[in-house]
Amino acid sequence: MLDKDIQSLLIRLQQTWHETIPVSRFMEIEPLQTRAGELDVTASLAPNINLHQTMFAGSIYTLCTLTGWGAVWLAQELAGVGGDIVLGSADIRYLAPVTDNPVARVDYSVIQPQCLAQGHKLKQTLTVVLWSGNLECARFQGTFFSLPSG
Amino acid sequence: MLDKDIQSLLIRLQQTWHETIPVSRFMEIEPLQTRAGELDVTASLAPNINLHQTMFAGSIYTLCTLTGWGAVWLAQELAGVGGDIVLGSADIRYLAPVTDNPVARVDYSVIQPQCLAQGHKLKQTLTVVLWSGNLECARFQGTFFSLPSG
Repeated sequence: MLDKDIQSLLIRLQQTWHETIPVSRFMEIEPLQTRAGELDVTASLAPNINLHQTMFAGSIYTLCTLTGWGAVWLAQELAGVGGDIVLGSADIRYLAPVTDNPVARVDYSVIQPQCLAQGHKLKQTLTVVLWSGNLECARFQGTFFSLPSG
Repeated sequence: MLDKDIQSLLIRLQQTWHETIPVSRFMEIEPLQTRAGELDVTASLAPNINLHQTMFAGSIYTLCTLTGWGAVWLAQELAGVGGDIVLGSADIRYLAPVTDNPVARVDYSVIQPQCLAQGHKLKQTLTVVLWSGNLECARFQGTFFSLPSG
């Protein structure tokens, strides 16, 4: 997989989010890069502040959720298989306020989506960490399901 | 407490959210009513859809988070005490798609905020249920902290 192919996938991921999930566009959520099997996703701080001028807890969760969803989507695209991805359950711990430059990071290299090609659903629990600079600000764990698409 | 006093508190709650949390305004989150010690909060579906045209998982979580936050705020206002409310951790299970008229409901009558008046922090775990008509669509549990305000 060439870097330019990954770049075009990340552009398509952003388009998918912004065209189908209005909140993701309002939050200015954007895939940043992949590196060493990890996906980084960011959002602008301004639309996502709370009354303390730090990142709103709901926005932190949403950024982590879409990062996990994006990891499954990316793994599927790289494997050439399709599936409808939904979040079944999740938990999150808030560790420190996000004051600047939020980056959510997830390992997508662990995802094995080939079962979808045989008509079986995929169940995948992912941990997403929300960084602000070198500070770990939140830790999200979500269980995603992907159903073979008709 | 007269009904009109509760109504004015709910209006002030909505103003607080919409003026300090831009995402809450975009999502059109609104306190609906209180009844029998419970607070109901709604949001419009249109700004909160996903690619399946049902309510986006991130928006469901955010609505539940603000409903829990609003319950602590309301209990504090009714008790005449102040505190800075933050969410420490939460988990959520998605049970059914939300296709119409989301209402998040929480019991605020259990909250005992008087400790804040003595300078002690409040720790409160709340369960918020997200209804669509008579269908329970998600169940959120969050642990909120409120710190005596300077």
